[in-house]
Amino acid sequence: MSINSFGHLFRVTTWGESHGPALGATVDGCPPGVPVDEAMIQHWLDRRKPGQNKYTTQRREADAVRILSGVFEGQTTGTPVQLMIENTDQRSKDYGDIMEKFRPGHADITYWQKYGIRDYRGGGRSSARETASRVAAGGLAREAIRAIAPDMRITGYMTRMGAHEIDRSRFDWDQIEQNPFWAPDAQAANDWAEYLDDLRKSGSSVGAVIEVVARGVPAGLGAPVYGKLDTDLAAAMMSINAVKGVEIGEGMSAAMLTGELNADEIFMGNDGKPSYSSNHSGGILGGISTGQDIVVRFAVKPTSSILKTRKTITKTGAETEIVTKGRHDPCVGIRAVPVGEAMMACVILDHMLLHRGQVGGQVGETRGHIG
Amino acid sequence: MSINSFGHLFRVTTWGESHGPALGATVDGCPPGVPVDEAMIQHWLDRRKPGQNKYTTQRREADAVRILSGVFEGQTTGTPVQLMIENTDQRSKDYGDIMEKFRPGHADITYWQKYGIRDYRGGGRSSARETASRVAAGGLAREAIRAIAPDMRITGYMTRMGAHEIDRSRFDWDQIEQNPFWAPDAQAANDWAEYLDDLRKSGSSVGAVIEVVARGVPAGLGAPVYGKLDTDLAAAMMSINAVKGVEIGEGMSAAMLTGELNADEIFMGNDGKPSYSSNHSGGILGGISTGQDIVVRFAVKPTSSILKTRKTITKTGAETEIVTKGRHDPCVGIRAVPVGEAMMACVILDHMLLHRGQVGGQVGETRGHIG
Amino acid sequence: MSINSFGHLFRVTTWGESHGPALGATVDGCPPGVPVDEAMIQHWLDRRKPGQNKYTTQRREADAVRILSGVFEGQTTGTPVQLMIENTDQRSKDYGDIMEKFRPGHADITYWQKYGIRDYRGGGRSSARETASRVAAGGLAREAIRAIAPDMRITGYMTRMGAHEIDRSRFDWDQIEQNPFWAPDAQAANDWAEYLDDLRKSGSSVGAVIEVVARGVPAGLGAPVYGKLDTDLAAAMMSINAVKGVEIGEGMSAAMLTGELNADEIFMGNDGKPSYSSNHSGGILGGISTGQDIVVRFAVKPTSSILKTRKTITKTGAETEIVTKGRHDPCVGIRAVPVGEAMMACVILDHMLLHRGQVGGQVGETRGHIG
Amino acid sequence: MSINSFGHLFRVTTWGESHGPALGATVDGCPPGVPVDEAMIQHWLDRRKPGQNKYTTQRREADAVRILSGVFEGQTTGTPVQLMIENTDQRSKDYGDIMEKFRPGHADITYWQKYGIRDYRGGGRSSARETASRVAAGGLAREAIRAIAPDMRITGYMTRMGAHEIDRSRFDWDQIEQNPFWAPDAQAANDWAEYLDDLRKSGSSVGAVIEVVARGVPAGLGAPVYGKLDTDLAAAMMSINAVKGVEIGEGMSAAMLTGELNADEIFMGNDGKPSYSSNHSGGILGGISTGQDIVVRFAVKPTSSILKTRKTITKTGAETEIVTKGRHDPCVGIRAVPVGEAMMACVILDHMLLHRGQVGGQVGETRGHIG
Repeated sequence: MSINSFGHLFRVTTWGESHGPALGATVDGCPPGVPVDEAMIQHWLDRRKPGQNKYTTQRREADAVRILSGVFEGQTTGTPVQLMIENTDQRSKDYGDIMEKFRPGHADITYWQKYGIRDYRGGGRSSARETASRVAAGGLAREAIRAIAPDMRITGYMTRMGAHEIDRSRFDWDQIEQNPFWAPDAQAANDWAEYLDDLRKSGSSVGAVIEVVARGVPAGLGAPVYGKLDTDLAAAMMSINAVKGVEIGEGMSAAMLTGELNADEIFMGNDGKPSYSSNHSGGILGGISTGQDIVVRFAVKPTSSILKTRKTITKTGAETEIVTKGRHDPCVGIRAVPVGEAMMACVILDHMLLHRGQVGGQVGETRGHIG
Repeated sequence: MSINSFGHLFRVTTWGESHGPALGATVDGCPPGVPVDEAMIQHWLDRRKPGQNKYTTQRREADAVRILSGVFEGQTTGTPVQLMIENTDQRSKDYGDIMEKFRPGHADITYWQKYGIRDYRGGGRSSARETASRVAAGGLAREAIRAIAPDMRITGYMTRMGAHEIDRSRFDWDQIEQNPFWAPDAQAANDWAEYLDDLRKSGSSVGAVIEVVARGVPAGLGAPVYGKLDTDLAAAMMSINAVKGVEIGEGMSAAMLTGELNADEIFMGNDGKPSYSSNHSGGILGGISTGQDIVVRFAVKPTSSILKTRKTITKTGAETEIVTKGRHDPCVGIRAVPVGEAMMACVILDHMLLHRGQVGGQVGETRGHIG
Repeated sequence: MSINSFGHLFRVTTWGESHGPALGATVDGCPPGVPVDEAMIQHWLDRRKPGQNKYTTQRREADAVRILSGVFEGQTTGTPVQLMIENTDQRSKDYGDIMEKFRPGHADITYWQKYGIRDYRGGGRSSARETASRVAAGGLAREAIRAIAPDMRITGYMTRMGAHEIDRSRFDWDQIEQNPFWAPDAQAANDWAEYLDDLRKSGSSVGAVIEVVARGVPAGLGAPVYGKLDTDLAAAMMSINAVKGVEIGEGMSAAMLTGELNADEIFMGNDGKPSYSSNHSGGILGGISTGQDIVVRFAVKPTSSILKTRKTITKTGAETEIVTKGRHDPCVGIRAVPVGEAMMACVILDHMLLHRGQVGGQVGETRGHIG
Repeated sequence: MSINSFGHLFRVTTWGESHGPALGATVDGCPPGVPVDEAMIQHWLDRRKPGQNKYTTQRREADAVRILSGVFEGQTTGTPVQLMIENTDQRSKDYGDIMEKFRPGHADITYWQKYGIRDYRGGGRSSARETASRVAAGGLAREAIRAIAPDMRITGYMTRMGAHEIDRSRFDWDQIEQNPFWAPDAQAANDWAEYLDDLRKSGSSVGAVIEVVARGVPAGLGAPVYGKLDTDLAAAMMSINAVKGVEIGEGMSAAMLTGELNADEIFMGNDGKPSYSSNHSGGILGGISTGQDIVVRFAVKPTSSILKTRKTITKTGAETEIVTKGRHDPCVGIRAVPVGEAMMACVILDHMLLHRGQVGGQVGETRGHIG
């Protein structure tokens, strides 16, 4: 019932504050015999590292991960894996002003009200920095998936920045790694660059929509009715800082369709497995994977730490105004892409293990045969 | 790690199939001394009971709840409360055709693939009938909330049916109980009635958007970073049959706003508590309640059981077509309204108990004082 | 975090009071495809049924179990299995006296202090009757084990009644079912019969020691360091009413041995598997099964409901005396034998599923090979 | 369902291997506002530190704890507390021989069989070194208890070393800290010193019995029927390395008593609270605390790492012999005393929080009043 943990069998507990000595993830339940080392985890961490371009916070963090336990001679042992990242660039001086004032739209006020104490430095536990722990754990999950289901691919990208959406007709998987926005649409990337430049200069910020797709996921993963694959994915994504909405497949638009349009028709594929005419379901029916792509989408609200003046109150209840001077992300959604991928990896690995436990057999094996 | 359970301290496990002898909810962790009897739970169950008007399935179920444990002399004792609903109107004959064929958009195929056995009668465990158990548990949660926080109000309503949305300028709380659609807008209710009549006659179905609001929720409920109030609400709503999207406050639209527009400014209210200029946050910041209304929205896809012919396959892998003759809901979203309310009630009660455990004090008390 | 549940993947929640309408077990996580029906569960329940001989309470209960969910056409479906037992013989009148007085050595006073309300009829939730739910769940676990590991045998027996212990040199598996005490020693059974007759007539009661052995358990079950097989067995046995001590293998006596005596030497067996010179470890090393017999022992205290006059207090704090007239067991340990077996079955099945999930492969398969 | 975690609300996950870079405890759910710093935790760690006298392993470890998160300006913040202890004195060379051979009575063989990989250095995860993490977490629990219930006292001591038991008539609380064995009996301490000296020289080892008592625990803690206080204590103690038996109050001897002897009679104390004629129950009835002392006892088996030659096998299945040369404890039970105290502290704090959550009110407040 740990509140800083998620997962059934692959269980991740993150810990640490933005400006404490370190933060990390305690991962329990990773299968034994998974080849992994610090460089492999670092590879994934580097993708979310701040300060890599002018569109993300200029905070410079080495974000170097250390594996403190659970790995021996290059393989996981089945015991807890401790992934630690030390905080190096803290600059607490930047944050003096928020000691007394609450930033509108920020967790400052609720943490204070609930706990009566808060580590205000850099947002403490509520800082986007906590997501580094998730990405480290997700990196481990990816290596475990690679060992169990080598053909699986988990890819995230941005589909919307503020008012500007990608054009699906220009969708190109290869573009994603080619621009700072993880955009699958080169044209959109260019437009966003210009748009975000202006926003940054004006000291404002903007929201974004991220889509994460898992390809090569076998049918049969998920567990009705509260351990559904979509239920766990919704929780995983909603738990990411600043996320306000989560969609599976058709998502909110499903409300606008009729039954005949929304129901994906079923055929037999050439591989002797069921195939579908469409994927409104996002690869999940009744909480269980169909074998189609798993498609999850989430909205990230704009950073509340901005250079614009906002009305607020102090701890003593005095009405005042605040401007957040410290470094910030004009579009925090950019760095949410690797985080969404990490959460998807953790949830899917978890359900692969859960499936083995409950139903037996190996991943990809299901009990019910068709044909 | 029970997969048919949800909740941290107020823990609900639902059980039962659509056409088995009975279904129900095993509720563990209900506080002692809550006044409750079968009539009180029945009141909430009756709101979702099918067959009450031509817009919901004509299946007639008494849906009479029995309390088998945990209540003594009209009060909860702190031991598990077993809420059982017997299935009376089963008509298995209706369902002969789906023994061999999988309904497109339905859990038939994934249950079969995962488990190699499925109770095909009425959808078995994946039937919307499972939500009766949730409403019973939600009824108990409401009585517990009434005992602890009498001023709290949890209300659900429909904001969209297919292409037709309510007009917020006509929003009227009193309308909600006045029409079969739980619409807060009388005009919309009339339009929907006509629209749904045509849909029903044509054998089609349509999706809907439900909004659930909790008023009078104290500040401080919720627990970062994976036991966030919004995380648990997202999981609770996504776990409801046919739900494909969940939003908190501004939801997916938050992606389209700038930081200055999205951040709710803070003032001091006349009651000496913080007050906000707006509620884009949906009453939750950093996973913790602000004291504003908690606003959750979810999209329900159209029923996949329709009279329209759809292409599908059989268990033996033969391609074929299917038409679902049995009774069905043209807009299953209607009956999802009381279900959404029930899930909200369970999650909020759970977090009230969790808050007492972690932080101490009574509900409404917080450790951090402002002013 | 359900407090009336146990198990990781095979998760049992018991519910119900001694004199309520019914009690039972909600079992989540039972693997699909296990052949089971009510008669199979009833077989196990009948072994603990009271009133079968003069040595157990004369309360007459049909203890007829009903399967309300999770089983379809004679097989488990992978959804929750609800096992319900209705209470038929309640005789509440017997219990009038304990409404106001607390029985020494009984949970009456602590339930009252904690909850401020208690179902005093027959001990309510704290009645040994709750164990019927465990035996029903254990029956299901046994059928699942039979399907996965047909050669496993779980057998309980009594090794001590009060001052009288069995003589291990006369140990005979076949005797166990031949006497009302589940004694593996015919001579002891005769002595106990006489001894217990006198005790019963004098209105007293006595404690007992139960030993439960699981034979044919594969090596590799268990999960360090808090999901150890012995940790879960200790919790399972200690949770049984009236149990005050639990031992694994050598148990408390291990404190009296030297390292060379206690450490079981290892050889290679003819079956190509490791074999051991002795079993001081009770089949568990480091929380993981060795492949030897799993041996658990627990002590059951004497029933506190006796005909002897004891000093106590009333709810109003007046000092008084009490004599429990109602029916009672002179040696409640007798009926604890099937309960201990049931708990062992649940824990071992749970760890077989957990092993599949974490390590993969089938039961009996281990990742590390010797030789 | 984390297998390296324990606790309901105060949730401890330990991680780390004997010879890895570090080990520690991730503690989630510690209440906010508890005054704590590294020195306070270090105080408790120093009590179990090895190498303090000739009776414990000569391995020299600084065992310096670092608090990496969850504490700000000398108080807990309600976020996870990461307690890390770096491994300094590792001497891997000592352990060369056990790479290929399995020590009888040790977890070497079962870890290998289950996981197919093991960190053999110093026993890896199964080393008694893991208990340092527990003591650190227990130190935090003690500080939280001090803040909530200042009068509570948790004290452990050794009651038996091999064949030699203490004499209860000489029991003296003040003696416990005066001798290296935590013996409450000065005479026993002297006898044990001589006895252990001979054992150590002969290269043998011996078992012990530890008793842990919690004084000043309020009535009402515990939660039937699987979250019982005694159930959780049994699991906590049995999870400690080398423990083979756990007793509450009268323990195994309860089997030898009659009902009238075992049932503690109840009177009204001068403080207006119930008082008892004796404490056979060990302060727990029906899984809930009575307000008397909580008394738990556990047996620690003799270390299996001894200088005596024992028969065993190699990874390749060859029969051979082994002598463990490395440093070892002749009576590992000595260092188990602070560990038992730590587990008691964690379990009791956890149940104090659970009680607040489920029943409300502050610790010591119960809902049911007597008198």
